[in-house]
Amino acid sequence: MKKPFELTASEATRAIDAGSLSATALVDSCLERIAEREPQVEAWTWLDADAARARAKSLDSGPRRGPLHGVPFGIKDIIDTFDMPTGYGSPIYAGSRPAADAACVALTREAGGVLLGKTVTTEFANLHPGKTRNPHDPSRTPGGSSSGSAAAVGALMVPLAIGTQTTASTIRPASYCGVYGYRPTWGDLRCSGVREAAGSLDTLGLMARSIEDIALYRDVLLGQPASPLPPEPRRPRIGFCRTSRWDTLEPSTAAMLEQAARTLAATGAQVTEIVLPEEFGRVVDAHRWVSSFEFTRNFRHEIANHADRISTTLREGRIRDGLSCSFERYLESRTFLEQCRLRLPDACSHVDLLLTASCDGEAPVGLNTTGNPYFSALWTALHVPCLTAPVFTGPAGLPVGVQLIGHRNRDRDLLDAARWVVAALA
Amino acid sequence: MKKPFELTASEATRAIDAGSLSATALVDSCLERIAEREPQVEAWTWLDADAARARAKSLDSGPRRGPLHGVPFGIKDIIDTFDMPTGYGSPIYAGSRPAADAACVALTREAGGVLLGKTVTTEFANLHPGKTRNPHDPSRTPGGSSSGSAAAVGALMVPLAIGTQTTASTIRPASYCGVYGYRPTWGDLRCSGVREAAGSLDTLGLMARSIEDIALYRDVLLGQPASPLPPEPRRPRIGFCRTSRWDTLEPSTAAMLEQAARTLAATGAQVTEIVLPEEFGRVVDAHRWVSSFEFTRNFRHEIANHADRISTTLREGRIRDGLSCSFERYLESRTFLEQCRLRLPDACSHVDLLLTASCDGEAPVGLNTTGNPYFSALWTALHVPCLTAPVFTGPAGLPVGVQLIGHRNRDRDLLDAARWVVAALA
Repeated sequence: MKKPFELTASEATRAIDAGSLSATALVDSCLERIAEREPQVEAWTWLDADAARARAKSLDSGPRRGPLHGVPFGIKDIIDTFDMPTGYGSPIYAGSRPAADAACVALTREAGGVLLGKTVTTEFANLHPGKTRNPHDPSRTPGGSSSGSAAAVGALMVPLAIGTQTTASTIRPASYCGVYGYRPTWGDLRCSGVREAAGSLDTLGLMARSIEDIALYRDVLLGQPASPLPPEPRRPRIGFCRTSRWDTLEPSTAAMLEQAARTLAATGAQVTEIVLPEEFGRVVDAHRWVSSFEFTRNFRHEIANHADRISTTLREGRIRDGLSCSFERYLESRTFLEQCRLRLPDACSHVDLLLTASCDGEAPVGLNTTGNPYFSALWTALHVPCLTAPVFTGPAGLPVGVQLIGHRNRDRDLLDAARWVVAALA
Repeated sequence: MKKPFELTASEATRAIDAGSLSATALVDSCLERIAEREPQVEAWTWLDADAARARAKSLDSGPRRGPLHGVPFGIKDIIDTFDMPTGYGSPIYAGSRPAADAACVALTREAGGVLLGKTVTTEFANLHPGKTRNPHDPSRTPGGSSSGSAAAVGALMVPLAIGTQTTASTIRPASYCGVYGYRPTWGDLRCSGVREAAGSLDTLGLMARSIEDIALYRDVLLGQPASPLPPEPRRPRIGFCRTSRWDTLEPSTAAMLEQAARTLAATGAQVTEIVLPEEFGRVVDAHRWVSSFEFTRNFRHEIANHADRISTTLREGRIRDGLSCSFERYLESRTFLEQCRLRLPDACSHVDLLLTASCDGEAPVGLNTTGNPYFSALWTALHVPCLTAPVFTGPAGLPVGVQLIGHRNRDRDLLDAARWVVAALA
């Protein structure tokens, strides 16, 4: 029998609804797990155990509040909370207290969620890493920028956490930490109260330990009644998409993905190869200019007033890129990405989802890098929904995700069919 | 000779550059004007005269900071400032102090602008009005939601002010207050640090008293070097677009616009009639569902925790709409708007700009309404750049704007050609 902290959110709410588990017992179990694992993982930048226990007690003494009644969750510290500091991963904002909850926090609380605290982000959700270590090997990065959210869910500290993604900030850490990571169709889930990195690319990102939980949490954040996925997963038509950078994958990751495509075909799925139009080779470069231009304008207050407390990584990377990027170059890149988004459906019209890499391999050794973003950045720029599922184990024994890409605006179909893929690869 | 407060921003900076005006003299002149007009107009929710004088003094004693060196400006109180409270037009946030300047504020300060204070907004940039009165007739609305920004520029209190537009919140008050109002191509000017109403529609909006100033301020907010418009305005091919609601215009406004189209043709412009595709009749309805869905999710914190301090107007209007709007309905409406945006260029391919109404007429009597939003909402939803120019006087002696609509991503061409239109109608 699972301990409470091991339960997914859906399993936990079923137990709470059935009366076999209380919100208090679940929160206490997660807090004990955090006490045990946090010294090594350091997923949290703020934890409020007392507030969480008080909230759980209040939930236990009242009616069912919603589909996440009693479920502990963590929030990336780039996202505002009215009752906890929000530091955006920067010394400039240490101890800063926003006046309101971000939309996603308010929606989760309203559904009955219990906020345990704020999870570590890289500096302003960019590259400069925080303190978090990979829960499966403390010598390795958890990935970024949603480092703490992925590590907390991977270490079984909370069943749900919110991150964000502007480049690779959800899919990559989720793959490295061995959890499900979901990046929605751009524009679906409100980012109000989330510190903007590059608005034309930013989305929330959800971390969980089951697809059922991702679907449930998505409904909550859409502000609509929870509607479970159909009992039988749909067998999808699969497009195996190597992208133009397949040769940069670790050989073991490439081999596992090639084998996965064969396994899925053998299990009865129609698997075809999808080659993206040649001009898509420029997408990640255009993404770089769009995100750097927007980021640098968004952070003008910090650049003008607090340059000495911005990391060298950020100053000499994204900020230098952004300051050098003219509006004309930005507009050309933005327009190119818009055209690619309009072209993508034609390239994928005969499949339900794409199968590709989440990352180039296992989490790299060292805490100074957050890993290669390419295999996420491409799809981020195309505004399509992405899911990484923790189905592989790499040569060093660490998790490696498989990434499934859906059609824009068809996130639910992606989640539905992803269950079939995961079951077939299990 | 003009008094300093009467100068446009461009005129003022030329005088400052020439040594015939100091930032201090300009700021003092604007503050005197405010002292004279504010009791009647009430454009400001916060004014910091001491900080403005100190800033002007500092600018006068140093090198030229940028293209707005010494220019006073106002900021709609939906936009964060690190050194002044930001109340979002709601008692919930009275006295609230954000930690940072919004991107647009930081960029303006960096260019040498002198922030005088925060201008009145309707509640959360929605419908419930603030205290501001029309500077041309205190019994009439200034329009909303950027009420204070339009009134402050119209009353010659500041040459520049920033507002926002999600429906009609810049074009309408600018028309009512007799100033230029510019709503950029959606996505061009960063909204980081602006409280989001409905992100897929929100933009900044600029208020000024010349097109030259609008072009200058746009460059500043794009974070790029100021590049003046060419000396000779371009004579545009004009599409006269009545839209499907021409019969809702006040007869005097319709007559002035019909006459304007004839005058422009007589002055040498090619003027053709543009009829939008029939399905565009649904655009404003789709805009309503998209904006209400997003708004209601964005303000979940306030709805959950401060419902008693939300106006009845907002609760029984946009919030009721948004709570009743399913994700499916939202997605259908959002997709419909995307399709219309892709279809618009074909309907307008043979003209450089559209000529249409800014509002149905003069500012209505009474301070409980902010006026009819239709003639702005249509173009807001289509993501195209819009400019209202104060060229008409209505039957009650109040200003009435003409609205010019450009092609998406061609804002500079719109501003260039708008000068020709305004000169021809003068």
